[in-house]
Amino acid sequence: MKRHLWTIALLAGLTFASQAVAQSKIVHDAEYYILEAQNGKKWEAEDKGIAARLKELRQKHGTPPNIVHIMWDDTAYGDVGIPAIQKVRGLNTPHLNRMAREGILFSRMYTEVGCTPSRAAIMTGRHPVRNSMFNIGMLRESHGLRASEVTLAEVLSKAGYATAFHGKWHLGDIEESYPHKQGFDEAFFTGYNQILSLHTRLAEGANASVGLIEDMLPEDPYKLDDTFITKGWVQVAEGTKNGPTRQWGDNSHDNYLKIDPEAQKRTLDFIERNAKTGKPFFVASWPNLTSFIPNPKKTSQSRSILQDGLESNIDPFVGKVMAKLKELGVAENTLLVCMADNGPMSHNPPPGLGMAETIFRGGKGDFLEGGVRVPAQAWWPGVIEEGQLVGDIIHETDLYTTFASLAGVTKEIPTDRVIDGIDQTALFLNGDTHSRRDYVFVYAGPNLGASVKGNYKRHWMTSDSVGEGSGIAAAFYFLPADPREKTPMLVNLIHLKSPFNRMRVRHELWKKKYPDLPERHGVPWTGIENATPKVEALSRPSVNLKDLPFDPLEYIEHLDGLPFDPTLDPDFGQ
Amino acid sequence: MKRHLWTIALLAGLTFASQAVAQSKIVHDAEYYILEAQNGKKWEAEDKGIAARLKELRQKHGTPPNIVHIMWDDTAYGDVGIPAIQKVRGLNTPHLNRMAREGILFSRMYTEVGCTPSRAAIMTGRHPVRNSMFNIGMLRESHGLRASEVTLAEVLSKAGYATAFHGKWHLGDIEESYPHKQGFDEAFFTGYNQILSLHTRLAEGANASVGLIEDMLPEDPYKLDDTFITKGWVQVAEGTKNGPTRQWGDNSHDNYLKIDPEAQKRTLDFIERNAKTGKPFFVASWPNLTSFIPNPKKTSQSRSILQDGLESNIDPFVGKVMAKLKELGVAENTLLVCMADNGPMSHNPPPGLGMAETIFRGGKGDFLEGGVRVPAQAWWPGVIEEGQLVGDIIHETDLYTTFASLAGVTKEIPTDRVIDGIDQTALFLNGDTHSRRDYVFVYAGPNLGASVKGNYKRHWMTSDSVGEGSGIAAAFYFLPADPREKTPMLVNLIHLKSPFNRMRVRHELWKKKYPDLPERHGVPWTGIENATPKVEALSRPSVNLKDLPFDPLEYIEHLDGLPFDPTLDPDFGQ
Repeated sequence: MKRHLWTIALLAGLTFASQAVAQSKIVHDAEYYILEAQNGKKWEAEDKGIAARLKELRQKHGTPPNIVHIMWDDTAYGDVGIPAIQKVRGLNTPHLNRMAREGILFSRMYTEVGCTPSRAAIMTGRHPVRNSMFNIGMLRESHGLRASEVTLAEVLSKAGYATAFHGKWHLGDIEESYPHKQGFDEAFFTGYNQILSLHTRLAEGANASVGLIEDMLPEDPYKLDDTFITKGWVQVAEGTKNGPTRQWGDNSHDNYLKIDPEAQKRTLDFIERNAKTGKPFFVASWPNLTSFIPNPKKTSQSRSILQDGLESNIDPFVGKVMAKLKELGVAENTLLVCMADNGPMSHNPPPGLGMAETIFRGGKGDFLEGGVRVPAQAWWPGVIEEGQLVGDIIHETDLYTTFASLAGVTKEIPTDRVIDGIDQTALFLNGDTHSRRDYVFVYAGPNLGASVKGNYKRHWMTSDSVGEGSGIAAAFYFLPADPREKTPMLVNLIHLKSPFNRMRVRHELWKKKYPDLPERHGVPWTGIENATPKVEALSRPSVNLKDLPFDPLEYIEHLDGLPFDPTLDPDFGQ
Repeated sequence: MKRHLWTIALLAGLTFASQAVAQSKIVHDAEYYILEAQNGKKWEAEDKGIAARLKELRQKHGTPPNIVHIMWDDTAYGDVGIPAIQKVRGLNTPHLNRMAREGILFSRMYTEVGCTPSRAAIMTGRHPVRNSMFNIGMLRESHGLRASEVTLAEVLSKAGYATAFHGKWHLGDIEESYPHKQGFDEAFFTGYNQILSLHTRLAEGANASVGLIEDMLPEDPYKLDDTFITKGWVQVAEGTKNGPTRQWGDNSHDNYLKIDPEAQKRTLDFIERNAKTGKPFFVASWPNLTSFIPNPKKTSQSRSILQDGLESNIDPFVGKVMAKLKELGVAENTLLVCMADNGPMSHNPPPGLGMAETIFRGGKGDFLEGGVRVPAQAWWPGVIEEGQLVGDIIHETDLYTTFASLAGVTKEIPTDRVIDGIDQTALFLNGDTHSRRDYVFVYAGPNLGASVKGNYKRHWMTSDSVGEGSGIAAAFYFLPADPREKTPMLVNLIHLKSPFNRMRVRHELWKKKYPDLPERHGVPWTGIENATPKVEALSRPSVNLKDLPFDPLEYIEHLDGLPFDPTLDPDFGQ
């Protein structure tokens, strides 16, 4: 079998064994080298102009550019930034729309399919399949981002950046995954997602018909197991680089509602502090967007939680950030990127959530365009030209490499692993048609769901499970004519079979040299200074170990050895 | 039963018998009077300002405004006018986009579900169910717009307008339906649709795998009936008001390709002629958009016939019209409206057509938003304010009444029938939130498919047949949160049941007083001066009548007596 694969590799025109990738260079995915071989000279010439421009900016401002990255959940392409779609959807985000008008609106920003993988991708510059960060973390997930991953904070710190994380981290509940253990100077973070907002006694009324937490229900007279449902967790925590970790407030819904205001206050304060001292800064400010408990007041025209979140939370915050950057005189030395982390939760939204498909089929959890093609925009007054609509493919991992490049610390990116992110500085600075990527591998959990190459897309699995599917497991689509991926063209596009196969073989053979890592497991919520008894209990076996014929901690360590099937895994796609 | 309906009417708060509608006033649909009762005073005040404004414009220009209406086929909301959607679809229409930026982009222009009904609606100001113009005319349709309908051309002629029709008429093949018999001073028109482009010997190559016309296939050795397939028709004809009719060119594909260039040349010439003599003018210029025979040359990025049609035909034409109006100095006295006639042919498009759903579900033939919510824009430099995005509901029948109002001849609109079109001059002049309509009845053929009221929509039939449906035949939707009409909210919106029922009862009771008319049938293509023998043969029985036990002409006359089922009628939705 192995020999067979190498034969295919030779047919694909590459011999991986002899491919000399200098260890001082970033190791990209195999596909990139196919592009570099054809466009490298042009890019080299373009890079000279870019280097000169960045040098000039640095001389002007004294530091490399500040970077503000704002990301929120589950929004369809066009639900922000495109007024003619907002009119249909009853949405209105004037600050984000102005930001788009004053900068770049991307029409092909690709993310991963869910919150945890999407966040991991930006933080590590790698598809989450490479470090098994594809599971959406839920209460007592007992896993997280491993220490050996090199985050954007760690890379930018090497360039002297002050770094902060504020908001929804969702990259694990094990201690090594906390953002201030992953390179951030300061962190204020949630380990899980917004479902936390339902897991509180104060949510009782709203949960009456949902009943997510046993604790809120009448006592079950048949109950034999008191350990099955998790009772202790940390809603939000804070810490400074490699220092102690403290829970912030309690697990109440009241406290949940304070998270975003506090995170945003800290972001604005962080920007102000560093702008005043002249230290370059990087802040990832990822709001919770919303609580799952609907606001009973008539705050939104479209009567949706999504609208409440976008209009009364995200949009004013983006407006404040832009105003603050201008007020502090650092707007012309700051790149602001705003985006969603994945497509809308369109399959089984809670009533009143307001998330729906717009142009693309599918949503969160899907390898369809609707799952991974998100609203995204960039703003950098005086540097990024106004009013650009950019049709190039860009993947969120590219932000990792691009931010490092803008900071001048590309060399700090680890070279012992595949970095999927490509340096897209040229796209940000020179605009439309200047992308260095024409492909995306779209993973659904650990499985390759689809490959995108230019305007073509191949599905490797059937999309029937997400409705309206073709029932064909390997189908070819031409996206401009069929953005909803409804009509596979097996006859018209069958000439793409071998090219897509070659692309996949290259991608998978490269993994022989740079293998994917298993999930990193551990005991959740250790190292919390002010841990409640329920949180402390998470570190101890919930039954007397001597009563068991096995060690539950050992069992946790081996969870990743289980066969994984996304259709069986209740975490996947939620 | 009748008594039962009247009881409901009383419950609905209206007694139709005693409702005194002065015969000198337009008879609107019942629903309008509910709105007028609540908003009439506000509208009256607004109308004074509008009248003053129109008077002032008339004094300035010496004539009421010219009106240019350009309409083409089967385009989804956003495929023109919205660059961020075009980027996704690989489309680019710079002139139409500029026109939208310089005027109004409507986000809720509703049409009828198909070409013939949509065209009939604009020409008569009436839902085509009222005169049975809901069938999509195909070869030897043997029916058409009846003489007693009062078209926009007839109304505007009363105000001294020069009137012209150029392009795809598609309102019948019987003599009384020809546009120059329906009030147009000059006409250059096709009686059928673009499928004509396939019905030619020159299309032989492209049709090899389609085989639409028996004439192109090898002789069928089992054939017994030589009359079943139509062999003669008129591809395109011309005439002047109530004068003779002549076929223009032949039925070849070469001649088909000359139709749009000739129609557009005549439109530009008509504009120039009348602008120079200072006569107010109205032209409906409705291009064929495209031939179904794909252009083998690489003319479009998205490799689609739709793109070829929009980018190389419609868009440059709109650019030329705007330039011509400016060049002639009449732009500030001309209202230009550009729109599609219905949603995309998304269900079973020919390969390479490129028509696809964007935001809305469904397409041509459906009562879903995708079938009837189309791109539409208005431009009138100096009068319509620039850069408006209008979220109001407007229906294409409103153009009839609005154009009459702008011309000052509302009194020429017949008052012996229901006119569904509402005067929307306020919307065109005062913009967003100034519509006088919050409802649409969406007919699929002769059946009421759905009712729209503000942001709410009720389906009266199941939409399962168009895929991805709910399977619920009477379902309520909240459109901003669910633009694709995927999740009927029977629990959340059940309070809409009675209001929607009342609205429908009012609408149907009004029909007791103003009944729908049957289809108007006749012998096709009579009165053609230069008729070919094949066309002449259409007027004669194809077999010896004495050999039959019935009269085939009498049979045609009684076609409308047949029970109509859109799922059985092969014409419907094509």
